Amino acid sequence: MPVEDLYPSRNRTEPAILDRQDPIIHSTDFSAAPISEEQLRQYEEKGFLLLPEVFSRAEVSRFLNELNQMQQDQALLDSEVSITEPDSGALRSVFQIHHHNDLFSQVASDPRVADIARFILDDDLYIHQSRLNFKPGFNGREFYWHSDFETWHVEDGMPRMRALSASILLTDNSDFNGSLMVMPGSHRKYVSCAGETPDDYYRHSLQQQTVGTPDNHSLSYLHKQYGLESTAAPAGSVLLFDCNLMHGSNGNITPMPRSNLFFVYNAASNRCVAPFCNQPPRPEFLATRETFDILPQRSASQDRKAG
Amino acid sequence: MPVEDLYPSRNRTEPAILDRQDPIIHSTDFSAAPISEEQLRQYEEKGFLLLPEVFSRAEVSRFLNELNQMQQDQALLDSEVSITEPDSGALRSVFQIHHHNDLFSQVASDPRVADIARFILDDDLYIHQSRLNFKPGFNGREFYWHSDFETWHVEDGMPRMRALSASILLTDNSDFNGSLMVMPGSHRKYVSCAGETPDDYYRHSLQQQTVGTPDNHSLSYLHKQYGLESTAAPAGSVLLFDCNLMHGSNGNITPMPRSNLFFVYNAASNRCVAPFCNQPPRPEFLATRETFDILPQRSASQDRKAG
Repeated sequence: MPVEDLYPSRNRTEPAILDRQDPIIHSTDFSAAPISEEQLRQYEEKGFLLLPEVFSRAEVSRFLNELNQMQQDQALLDSEVSITEPDSGALRSVFQIHHHNDLFSQVASDPRVADIARFILDDDLYIHQSRLNFKPGFNGREFYWHSDFETWHVEDGMPRMRALSASILLTDNSDFNGSLMVMPGSHRKYVSCAGETPDDYYRHSLQQQTVGTPDNHSLSYLHKQYGLESTAAPAGSVLLFDCNLMHGSNGNITPMPRSNLFFVYNAASNRCVAPFCNQPPRPEFLATRETFDILPQRSASQDRKAG
Repeated sequence: MPVEDLYPSRNRTEPAILDRQDPIIHSTDFSAAPISEEQLRQYEEKGFLLLPEVFSRAEVSRFLNELNQMQQDQALLDSEVSITEPDSGALRSVFQIHHHNDLFSQVASDPRVADIARFILDDDLYIHQSRLNFKPGFNGREFYWHSDFETWHVEDGMPRMRALSASILLTDNSDFNGSLMVMPGSHRKYVSCAGETPDDYYRHSLQQQTVGTPDNHSLSYLHKQYGLESTAAPAGSVLLFDCNLMHGSNGNITPMPRSNLFFVYNAASNRCVAPFCNQPPRPEFLATRETFDILPQRSASQDRKAG
């Protein structure tokens, strides 16, 4: 029996704003949480939580070293998991890092982040998507406004809003170099987009998304309702945000690059089904299907700093 | 006899960073200034001065009304003084507003701004260039790093650094919607660019400048020396900045447009000569030559608020 489509999008001629049908925090006993109730309430209300400097300078250095090595790995650059800028050819993202890279696979299950995700989603977890993002200095491109869930739902078949993203900052993010802007509270509304998904759309959308982007009218409405907030923070900080939070980032002409690690935690019970559009699913490196693997639960030893 | 080129650029294969050969504040008796000595010292040190809310809300409303009427004036949109976005065709700038528009011609000589410019440049003034800038919401393009003087010198034949710009903010400028970023102190260094100026370059450069833009190495050097500062301020504020200050702005994906009026005051004694490149001068709407007119000195009556 097909799964009901609670969040239809790209199957109509006019955009619409729908209500969220799922909880934001799925656990109910807050006394068992790895972070404070105040932090949980903030996540619930705003749809995101910034945890300053969770990873040490030494850890961030190790990640950056790994990143530099990856930038020189021609086999990796040539493979489908690497996405380059349309104009300059510069590396923009590497996907599936939890799968292909030992170090980043360890980071994916780091209890300082994964334990919080596990509490919020109240389930076993798996990584729906992971990537390393580079926004180079001088000519970093913008990421236009979007809810991640809209794409994951329509193109990947993620049924419900029971997923979240963790962005681990590898460089200082300031208001100058294109840090993520969010519309706090927008995770309670779902912008159902007009238009249809073209064939093999992901090949184009990874460079620049045009279908599945919210219309100006909906964005102005959300902006008026919820305003904007910056998520600028120093390297080593972690930004957790709900799968349906409206977010985007301006370009970056400053000499300061902006790089981060990005892990999408999905509840095991929310595993992807057939996409909610008339298209085959996107490839495995963008959306886990066959490589589904429950994230190991590592003990939160003395290195836990996020609580 | 040709005027000596103190600031050569685009006539060499390698970029270079040269020292400024001109004063920043040309008047010497600070007791006669229309602003405080502290403000003057700040302008001298940083190369810019932000004057909050010089123009009232009522005045800003009047300017915005005028702007709306101009956006509907098809003859104006079709004329060479109007510049549109390369992709969308949206209006980006209207030039020579001090000449074609009664209201903005009055604003050009408003003593709250012009008196300060006259003091800093210590001379009679004329308007070298004026424009209305629109940075629309959702898809506002970036303005890449540049020193205005480099272009005015090479392409317009402005001999010396004895000019300044006044940007009058018509919308709130925040760190989200692409407010101007400056490198405070960079006005003391001149980045001499590599490359040559192509024929009729202004037709291309008004949409996107590629020649006469500083190289990454020089920008990184200036950034390291001087850092970055935001000039975010509410509508009605005035940003005064030296002709050689390195500045730029990121794109704007927010729903908030960013618009301003822009007047370039040049010292009458610094009137343009033949361009310092092997090209004819740019057209009159970009750089005053034949329409040279000393700016009338209006009495600073009770409406002066900038001091």
